[in-house]
Amino acid sequence: MEFSSKLLENAVNEMSQLPGIGKRTALRLVLHLLRQPKEQSFLLAGALQKVREEINFCKSCHNISDQELCEICTNPLRKKELICVVEDIRDVMAIESTGSFRGLYHVLGGKISPMDGIGPQDLNIESLVAKAKSGKIEELIFAMSPTMEGDTTNFYIFKQLQDFNIATSTIARGIAAGNELEYADEITLGRSIIDRVPFEASLKL
Amino acid sequence: MEFSSKLLENAVNEMSQLPGIGKRTALRLVLHLLRQPKEQSFLLAGALQKVREEINFCKSCHNISDQELCEICTNPLRKKELICVVEDIRDVMAIESTGSFRGLYHVLGGKISPMDGIGPQDLNIESLVAKAKSGKIEELIFAMSPTMEGDTTNFYIFKQLQDFNIATSTIARGIAAGNELEYADEITLGRSIIDRVPFEASLKL
Repeated sequence: MEFSSKLLENAVNEMSQLPGIGKRTALRLVLHLLRQPKEQSFLLAGALQKVREEINFCKSCHNISDQELCEICTNPLRKKELICVVEDIRDVMAIESTGSFRGLYHVLGGKISPMDGIGPQDLNIESLVAKAKSGKIEELIFAMSPTMEGDTTNFYIFKQLQDFNIATSTIARGIAAGNELEYADEITLGRSIIDRVPFEASLKL
Repeated sequence: MEFSSKLLENAVNEMSQLPGIGKRTALRLVLHLLRQPKEQSFLLAGALQKVREEINFCKSCHNISDQELCEICTNPLRKKELICVVEDIRDVMAIESTGSFRGLYHVLGGKISPMDGIGPQDLNIESLVAKAKSGKIEELIFAMSPTMEGDTTNFYIFKQLQDFNIATSTIARGIAAGNELEYADEITLGRSIIDRVPFEASLKL
């Protein structure tokens, strides 16, 4: 791609560093910004600069936060002895939006994935074990995605915590609401039968 | 979507103003930047700010340029009496990459589209007519996309230029290289037969 302007080329190159954004899309986005009032580009540039410069991670749960401790960790109404282990902040947002969890989180920042060169030392596992050692955790819920990497991560942490007296659970696997039974894979369908729930309990949410 | 950080929320909101980028994609992009070295975000923010602040449009052809006149307009090897009319700078880049056009361009900056509220006065048509009046143009090639709006724009400009002694042409419509004949629409296939080319001429590019 040949550009008639160095400034444009530079902006397109930087934009196309983002995941899933190729050169053509980057060019479309930058040209869009050029057609908009200057303020829009300045606000975007300013917000990106500021978020990278000033972002904090909660000292306790590693969630993104503007303070040292995030709003969830400092909320006195939440059960501090119940911890939900998630992969990243998007999972925190997803679970929070259900409104059905009132404990705290622990954000690992990824999952163990030898293929991508990510080992246990790259994740926030040490601080989780330290929390467990302190004896303040009663139950740990593994809420990783049900993939090979998620299962590996769960199992690794489970092994680390075996010596402490902590109840562990994983979120239920089963048929998603609205899905057709016939299209479910056999592992999911099999688990959903093994882990069946008393009908009366299934009526509550 | 509820965010645990105002800075993050702000960045995601600004990012999702871009066309085709929703809140979820914006969040994914911003989280990606947060995992990268700080420099990447700063370079992106700086490039976006700078391109919007300092970008120039060529005084003659309205192409994006870092100088008053773009490199194409100032190139002494290009035929100044042959003008190719295009919708936007991406079309200039596309035609330039073929290497088969040695004249100048005129970038309209859009196409006449009553549905989107874009009329002739919103495009760089006046300056094209002024160029035509000056008597320096011999031939004008319409290279708009073959859509309803493109055809309308071509016809509007054609009408404006009728009084001047200028040859006009449009880029050929026909079957694209590598396409199967049976899947071509009838208008394109029909035109490709009417506008057939002597076989010997078709061997050259």
